[in-house]
Amino acid sequence: MTSSNNMLNFGLFGCGRIGRMHGRNITLNSRARLAACYDVAADAARQAGAALGCTAVASIDDILGDPAIKAVLIASSTDTHVELIRASARAGKAVFCEKPIDLDMALVDACWRDIGSLDPLLMIGFNRRFDPEFRSVKERLDAGAIGSIEQVVITNRDPAPPPPTYLRESGGLLHDFTIHDFDMARYLAGEIVEVSAFGANLVDPMFREADDIDTAMLVLRTAGGALVHINNTRRCVYGYDQRIEVFGAKGMLQAGNRHPSTVEVWTADGTRARDPVMPGFMSRYDDSYRAELDHFIDCVVNGTKPITDFASAREALRIADAAVASMKSGKTMRLEGAGRGS
Amino acid sequence: MTSSNNMLNFGLFGCGRIGRMHGRNITLNSRARLAACYDVAADAARQAGAALGCTAVASIDDILGDPAIKAVLIASSTDTHVELIRASARAGKAVFCEKPIDLDMALVDACWRDIGSLDPLLMIGFNRRFDPEFRSVKERLDAGAIGSIEQVVITNRDPAPPPPTYLRESGGLLHDFTIHDFDMARYLAGEIVEVSAFGANLVDPMFREADDIDTAMLVLRTAGGALVHINNTRRCVYGYDQRIEVFGAKGMLQAGNRHPSTVEVWTADGTRARDPVMPGFMSRYDDSYRAELDHFIDCVVNGTKPITDFASAREALRIADAAVASMKSGKTMRLEGAGRGS
Amino acid sequence: MTSSNNMLNFGLFGCGRIGRMHGRNITLNSRARLAACYDVAADAARQAGAALGCTAVASIDDILGDPAIKAVLIASSTDTHVELIRASARAGKAVFCEKPIDLDMALVDACWRDIGSLDPLLMIGFNRRFDPEFRSVKERLDAGAIGSIEQVVITNRDPAPPPPTYLRESGGLLHDFTIHDFDMARYLAGEIVEVSAFGANLVDPMFREADDIDTAMLVLRTAGGALVHINNTRRCVYGYDQRIEVFGAKGMLQAGNRHPSTVEVWTADGTRARDPVMPGFMSRYDDSYRAELDHFIDCVVNGTKPITDFASAREALRIADAAVASMKSGKTMRLEGAGRGS
Amino acid sequence: MTSSNNMLNFGLFGCGRIGRMHGRNITLNSRARLAACYDVAADAARQAGAALGCTAVASIDDILGDPAIKAVLIASSTDTHVELIRASARAGKAVFCEKPIDLDMALVDACWRDIGSLDPLLMIGFNRRFDPEFRSVKERLDAGAIGSIEQVVITNRDPAPPPPTYLRESGGLLHDFTIHDFDMARYLAGEIVEVSAFGANLVDPMFREADDIDTAMLVLRTAGGALVHINNTRRCVYGYDQRIEVFGAKGMLQAGNRHPSTVEVWTADGTRARDPVMPGFMSRYDDSYRAELDHFIDCVVNGTKPITDFASAREALRIADAAVASMKSGKTMRLEGAGRGS
Repeated sequence: MTSSNNMLNFGLFGCGRIGRMHGRNITLNSRARLAACYDVAADAARQAGAALGCTAVASIDDILGDPAIKAVLIASSTDTHVELIRASARAGKAVFCEKPIDLDMALVDACWRDIGSLDPLLMIGFNRRFDPEFRSVKERLDAGAIGSIEQVVITNRDPAPPPPTYLRESGGLLHDFTIHDFDMARYLAGEIVEVSAFGANLVDPMFREADDIDTAMLVLRTAGGALVHINNTRRCVYGYDQRIEVFGAKGMLQAGNRHPSTVEVWTADGTRARDPVMPGFMSRYDDSYRAELDHFIDCVVNGTKPITDFASAREALRIADAAVASMKSGKTMRLEGAGRGS
Repeated sequence: MTSSNNMLNFGLFGCGRIGRMHGRNITLNSRARLAACYDVAADAARQAGAALGCTAVASIDDILGDPAIKAVLIASSTDTHVELIRASARAGKAVFCEKPIDLDMALVDACWRDIGSLDPLLMIGFNRRFDPEFRSVKERLDAGAIGSIEQVVITNRDPAPPPPTYLRESGGLLHDFTIHDFDMARYLAGEIVEVSAFGANLVDPMFREADDIDTAMLVLRTAGGALVHINNTRRCVYGYDQRIEVFGAKGMLQAGNRHPSTVEVWTADGTRARDPVMPGFMSRYDDSYRAELDHFIDCVVNGTKPITDFASAREALRIADAAVASMKSGKTMRLEGAGRGS
Repeated sequence: MTSSNNMLNFGLFGCGRIGRMHGRNITLNSRARLAACYDVAADAARQAGAALGCTAVASIDDILGDPAIKAVLIASSTDTHVELIRASARAGKAVFCEKPIDLDMALVDACWRDIGSLDPLLMIGFNRRFDPEFRSVKERLDAGAIGSIEQVVITNRDPAPPPPTYLRESGGLLHDFTIHDFDMARYLAGEIVEVSAFGANLVDPMFREADDIDTAMLVLRTAGGALVHINNTRRCVYGYDQRIEVFGAKGMLQAGNRHPSTVEVWTADGTRARDPVMPGFMSRYDDSYRAELDHFIDCVVNGTKPITDFASAREALRIADAAVASMKSGKTMRLEGAGRGS
Repeated sequence: MTSSNNMLNFGLFGCGRIGRMHGRNITLNSRARLAACYDVAADAARQAGAALGCTAVASIDDILGDPAIKAVLIASSTDTHVELIRASARAGKAVFCEKPIDLDMALVDACWRDIGSLDPLLMIGFNRRFDPEFRSVKERLDAGAIGSIEQVVITNRDPAPPPPTYLRESGGLLHDFTIHDFDMARYLAGEIVEVSAFGANLVDPMFREADDIDTAMLVLRTAGGALVHINNTRRCVYGYDQRIEVFGAKGMLQAGNRHPSTVEVWTADGTRARDPVMPGFMSRYDDSYRAELDHFIDCVVNGTKPITDFASAREALRIADAAVASMKSGKTMRLEGAGRGS
């Protein structure tokens, strides 16, 4: 539509399911163009390149060394994030990296020591902040719709367990899945100063075998004194249950589940029945993935800071580490020092 | 609780299902006492008397002639209403009579000619005006919640066909069932000046055989210019569907169905499913029957006029007559002369 | 993404608001390409061409004579539809024309006499059949979810009156607005054999001055015996109220309004409050516009017939004509002869 | 209605707000009769006696020594419960006592040591088990509607703080208010084996001054391995928020709030808005208070055990004690030994 001179050229690292989804969003964005894609598996890159209409390149440097490419989107496996962030920042690219930065705080901090002085434009993909439902909650909170926040209840239930292979690399429920809720809690209610985590194995023996849990309840305390409850599970038969409730001195806000349609069925067996809710994160959060990309492009165009920056992603990891410590010790963990970032 | 000297003593005519229900409500009302009951079937009266703790009398005059009985509740068959109203009014009783007055306008008008000069306290049981849901709608309308009324949509669907014997005496769907909606339309939106009725036979051949319909849609026009839609059926598998929507210049009010509980079921087959709605008029309108009795007692105690008086019941009949004429002629019928009553 | 050789090249007639919306949908569709646009106002065409990345042409023949353009999308003013359909069909183009064909049945029939023998691929844009909500209702009906259809209630309320200039050319509420509901009634419940229409002027004097109405209620009867109620208004303060209820022998289906978000606000003033519903047809029906385009492309690619064809659009007009006659005469109008088309 | 010979005669201890409410329920129950009432404040007893139509007696023994009185209802202040239970059980009465038995476990156990061998019919008023909403949840769970239970979320928010005087005697939020939720958790999900409690002071300084909290979140673990979350507050501006969600392997059940009516308001400011929810425990749980009385009478008539017996009330207290210990220590408390009772 507009000439490609005005468009932001992206290079894509990682051509798996998430990478291709981000790649497609780039091609649909009127301000962006997908120039090149790379994957450690050359076949995957070739197929993605064909499907997305971009060049499949054979090495990372084909992207980092291309001056026409101003931005990179990192959607490769978690263990490659830190190295790609470092190299991309040094190459002067604007960097959008899928969450998490890494599962190991030492590597995360080493990464920042190396690139912090470059003041890179660096966004970590905590996409749920960009979901229209939750964003609307945040805007109403900021507008004072319910006064000061006293309680937050976050329900986050995965429709079905991930494959065992994924499980081993994921870092476990609290680092892989609940981490979204830690970020959301901070986004809505401010810094977290206390974490208590409770896990259970109710869904599938494979979780216990992987030294992981499949069911969790947590209670967090914010710097402002509010209490936050998070509940998680790896199996939810009626779909991907995603709800947030914020209770305050002057009222309550609830963001409910999204359904494929508004149609209600009334029969002798029951009334007002609707279909199961959205079946998974791709369908449930499609808006948020497009919106976070748009936010990233805004930041590049306007020279502003992303609201999901390196420091905020680090803070979500810090809470996840504390949550694991709490679950194992049966004690409440204090988080010393206010979090950085937004 | 309070001494019976302060209580309003009732005589009950008619000990069928409705009569016993009203009788029970009298016994539960702290300002009323059921003194006596009568039924043309002596056995029915005896059983009701035993169940309700009152004297079963052998003749109408045992009630009308008892000076301690100040009020009568007429719940006998429709063809006895006019005569009992007349005799009760002449005996100086306050009269509560189940709807309708009669199915024949000539008899209705003859009745009033005989008793109008007595200025009787006479209430006809259009109970739905006393339903908390619809009353709340009315109060909000009066408070200006949605500005001037432009459209009303009344959904009134019976769960299951009445027995064939009832059908023959009922006067047909429009006189027996829709008449509640005619009264409700007047209550909410004012006098009706135009009626168009459309009937269908979709539920059971017995209705056609009885020269009746089982499905209807109507459009009414009020003196204020608003349009009113009514839809009816004699079979609704998910319960007794009772809804009202009022649309105005500044918004809309909706009174929804009542369910036995708020419980929602979420499974792989569907979400948010609730039980069928209330199964029939006894369970759905129990509040309204108690409230209309209370209103009647208020009128006796305070010397005020009931909001469902003789004239308003006559007006509902007049609209039903016009609806039948419209259905048969395929034309819109004008109602000349504003209705009387409230 | 795919090479443009495989894409369906479109020419666009009419670059107003609707034309540009369709043009954008063409550019977003992975199987289509917008080759050229034309408008009687050359400036409008130029601006649309720039915004949509296509050539703005100076004459209709630049599109009709271009063999690379296989399909046309007609979104010009209603009085040009018939002529453009005729010329496009003769030029061998696949034709997608915005509703209505024309407001004058004689012109509609003359058009078909001229092109019928060409057996053109010709789709009229009754977009609501492609709305995911209503399509879901249709699919459930077809699957027997509620048994045979007995009643349909269609609520269609415009948020705000159109500009007076539009009003004069629109053909009036029943031809411009209710016509969508006529088509929907046929889509869901089958052929219409009887129409009764009731109009009112409650919203703005401008409607009366234009010899139009701003509020309407209708009752239709289908060939299968079901009754259909439609209610319309030109002003609805809480948004674009779009609901359908279908009641059958075994249950009920309701398609409700869409809201910008699921967020509910609970305060001392009220609970469960949501934002106003979608503000207008562009936001409410965006999915349906994209889906109808996709259906059209399916038809071109597969050589199938569109479900919203010339005959079905003619039938919607025939019902609208009967509705006007009914409203003016105060009588129910019979529609002789079953409708054609789907 | 039925002769008083067949009725269960009650004596009432305590004529405050709760006592009068129970007294009224006795008078409304067709199987019960309120014979006498007593209060330490003779005036209160006299007024209640007049209002409820029973004899106001001057001493406890007037009730305990009356052989016609078979049952007592203890609704006096908490610190009198243990002594009245003991005396009533020894006098051979069936005993219905308001919750809690006492705030001090030592006194509770001493009480049972004294009367356990008498095998008294003794019910403690954990009324919420009899609420139709929650009972419906329980019945569906028992019927296997959602498979094995994995998570329970109980929301219990008081509309407004109690008076400071009450606060001092109440035993604190966890013993006075949350104790209902502890009992509910056991009722729905089985024995509790682990408790973690988190308190906050966000509502009113008076709570902190009373060494109490006004906001709480808890996580419990059941013997079956399920996790339970409870959230509480002493101030909720939209009414008495009472919800339960049970999540299982095959689905979810939600019992929602009750509203005074179903009426929804749609305006330019918002849509689907309903009134605040029920304002307090009297209006919200009126059904449950009547149903628990009926259950007690069933037990007396049939010689069965109440589902809210002494042991289950003791267990709720034991959980409350553990919750306090958890809150103060910041540690999860284990409850050794399975609970007794139902």
